[in-house]
Amino acid sequence: MASWVLRMLPRNIRSLTTSSENQRVEDCHRHQEAYGYFLPIQTRWQDNDQYGHVNNVVYYSYFDTIINHYLIRYCGLKTRLLTSPLVGFMVTNQCTFHAPVSFPQVPVAALAVEKVGHSSVHYRLALFPPKPAQEPPRADHHDLNDGFFFGHPKLAQFDTLACTTGSSVHVFVNPATSKPTGLPEDFRRGLLRLRRLAPV
Amino acid sequence: MASWVLRMLPRNIRSLTTSSENQRVEDCHRHQEAYGYFLPIQTRWQDNDQYGHVNNVVYYSYFDTIINHYLIRYCGLKTRLLTSPLVGFMVTNQCTFHAPVSFPQVPVAALAVEKVGHSSVHYRLALFPPKPAQEPPRADHHDLNDGFFFGHPKLAQFDTLACTTGSSVHVFVNPATSKPTGLPEDFRRGLLRLRRLAPV
Amino acid sequence: MASWVLRMLPRNIRSLTTSSENQRVEDCHRHQEAYGYFLPIQTRWQDNDQYGHVNNVVYYSYFDTIINHYLIRYCGLKTRLLTSPLVGFMVTNQCTFHAPVSFPQVPVAALAVEKVGHSSVHYRLALFPPKPAQEPPRADHHDLNDGFFFGHPKLAQFDTLACTTGSSVHVFVNPATSKPTGLPEDFRRGLLRLRRLAPV
Amino acid sequence: MASWVLRMLPRNIRSLTTSSENQRVEDCHRHQEAYGYFLPIQTRWQDNDQYGHVNNVVYYSYFDTIINHYLIRYCGLKTRLLTSPLVGFMVTNQCTFHAPVSFPQVPVAALAVEKVGHSSVHYRLALFPPKPAQEPPRADHHDLNDGFFFGHPKLAQFDTLACTTGSSVHVFVNPATSKPTGLPEDFRRGLLRLRRLAPV
Repeated sequence: MASWVLRMLPRNIRSLTTSSENQRVEDCHRHQEAYGYFLPIQTRWQDNDQYGHVNNVVYYSYFDTIINHYLIRYCGLKTRLLTSPLVGFMVTNQCTFHAPVSFPQVPVAALAVEKVGHSSVHYRLALFPPKPAQEPPRADHHDLNDGFFFGHPKLAQFDTLACTTGSSVHVFVNPATSKPTGLPEDFRRGLLRLRRLAPV
Repeated sequence: MASWVLRMLPRNIRSLTTSSENQRVEDCHRHQEAYGYFLPIQTRWQDNDQYGHVNNVVYYSYFDTIINHYLIRYCGLKTRLLTSPLVGFMVTNQCTFHAPVSFPQVPVAALAVEKVGHSSVHYRLALFPPKPAQEPPRADHHDLNDGFFFGHPKLAQFDTLACTTGSSVHVFVNPATSKPTGLPEDFRRGLLRLRRLAPV
Repeated sequence: MASWVLRMLPRNIRSLTTSSENQRVEDCHRHQEAYGYFLPIQTRWQDNDQYGHVNNVVYYSYFDTIINHYLIRYCGLKTRLLTSPLVGFMVTNQCTFHAPVSFPQVPVAALAVEKVGHSSVHYRLALFPPKPAQEPPRADHHDLNDGFFFGHPKLAQFDTLACTTGSSVHVFVNPATSKPTGLPEDFRRGLLRLRRLAPV
Repeated sequence: MASWVLRMLPRNIRSLTTSSENQRVEDCHRHQEAYGYFLPIQTRWQDNDQYGHVNNVVYYSYFDTIINHYLIRYCGLKTRLLTSPLVGFMVTNQCTFHAPVSFPQVPVAALAVEKVGHSSVHYRLALFPPKPAQEPPRADHHDLNDGFFFGHPKLAQFDTLACTTGSSVHVFVNPATSKPTGLPEDFRRGLLRLRRLAPV
């Protein structure tokens, strides 16, 4: 998405893709306070497509990464197929692209948990670009290992308005029994930590 | 998505992700007759993720490919940024994953056009796996260059029920004027060829 | 790699990257007769990078694909980690890029086996672009499932000179014993079928 | 490459892929002191392949990223095709894989410049995994924007022995004249800063 599209796209998207009710909810999800967990995303040269901005496909890879990173780091997920009692499969996901980012920018991904079912989890996701400052964000990103949580001062280095928003649903299955499996208690607790009150 | 999830996921998805009205529409979009254009998709070793099936991110790349392939081959789209009067930006997209595919399977992607606006296009997309026959589909795929249209006999080699369905919206912009641009008449004609009557 | 580089690059590469002895061997490996097995490659929109041609990284994915496709289709390789007695790990690989290809071209990848050791295999690889004809290659590509072998008439539809050449080495390991493992006899036989006489 | 391969592969690679002279040089390039510039690499869920480790293809994407990041950040490279007087094309590259890394590890990529020609640059590249400590590296990675140079204390958090080594050659071309172009003086100066004395 070329930079000259930036200023005009939100209006287009509004009329093109969503009803007014959906739009109101969508607008709420463009703000940092709708999210609990944040992970800086390192863009790659290969992420940019022929038009010079991160290709739409690649955003799903950013969101897959923040979700799995959180599950491994804070919920005890084991991802080795040979040993894991629990594997997560994506059943649906979607994104809306409000404005582009490009390599070598370092945006921050954001994660919220909307609903935790017996064996499923509904996520909300967003990407916030670095503020167009003289200086790029100089925050320490040991954050690549830990990420950080809502309220952290370094969020000030990123735009308050998301350039991309999305959502997805995971179903967790036990590879041994071939069936959706109830989420373990500590796994569930890790997820509920990101349960944001519905932004009404 | 492991193969043992196959038979149970549709029911899960139904209850997890969609209202009953949405579900009815979604169901219509799982059938070949809802689509006009088809392109075989060559999976790659790298497409499979740690769980042994095509990663959810990669399906968006398949759908990006069938759309751009159709626009270049049948609508005259030029994609060179230095010379193109018209570039398409994705503003929103979504997928629902009903059953997995894996490398080295060769599924077929499907494309329909739901709406052609002044400068925007709404697409419907699907992926149909090869039939679980003794023999993999032996159809000729010069189809990699031309694809084929609804009614072609080789569609019989693929499942009648999609393993993935999705949708997306393109907005076309003129790089010179920085504004959404009206679609040229022959471009529009190429797209309308894929306008499927709403499957009511 | 932009198209205007096409005609001048081979000379550059010659002087920049290789000694004259290496160059002679490299030249031999740019011809179809140095290879035994061929698989058409479907490029994707996302393969093109910001400069409008397939990114150098992606060629390795094409070559990974032809190798694994051949091993699964003709040597009986099972790739499920949970059940496979034999998994192949790449220990080294390299490419030289003589001329670019771009989406939506359909080039053909080529594979030869240079050496089969106790537990390792040395491959030679190449990519041949479609001939710059009026018509793109209309060959049937049920070839996506079977590929084809040297001598097949449809090779006439591709350039006789490779646009990319490469090589790689696989070591096969038994996941149970954690050690390199001798290659089974039929596996070895499938590989030796692609053993090309050194093109002297 | 599964973790159980770790301890045995170096010996395999030695005998399989290189002459003893090449091996000696290769060994030199496995140490941090052979490199001038370092950039932490954020792995992604999608980077892991079916065998649970970063796929060989993806390492080339890491190396493409550190090179372009350095050129943009420290040599003034502009990568917009519409405005850039200078674009770099990869003419050859290679990697040797000594030991695996996996998502969600955060290794560090390393870059050295071996030779700066009239219009070409030869690079050496490596990837160093985080030390297998209790704690993952907690270094600040504003490093994602700036990287850091040899001698920086946070290099102590990474293994002294590279898990992957590689090399590549860029040729720079002027898109207007279609010819290889002499490198501007400040561009050349930025590169020479990474010229490491040959590790003899």
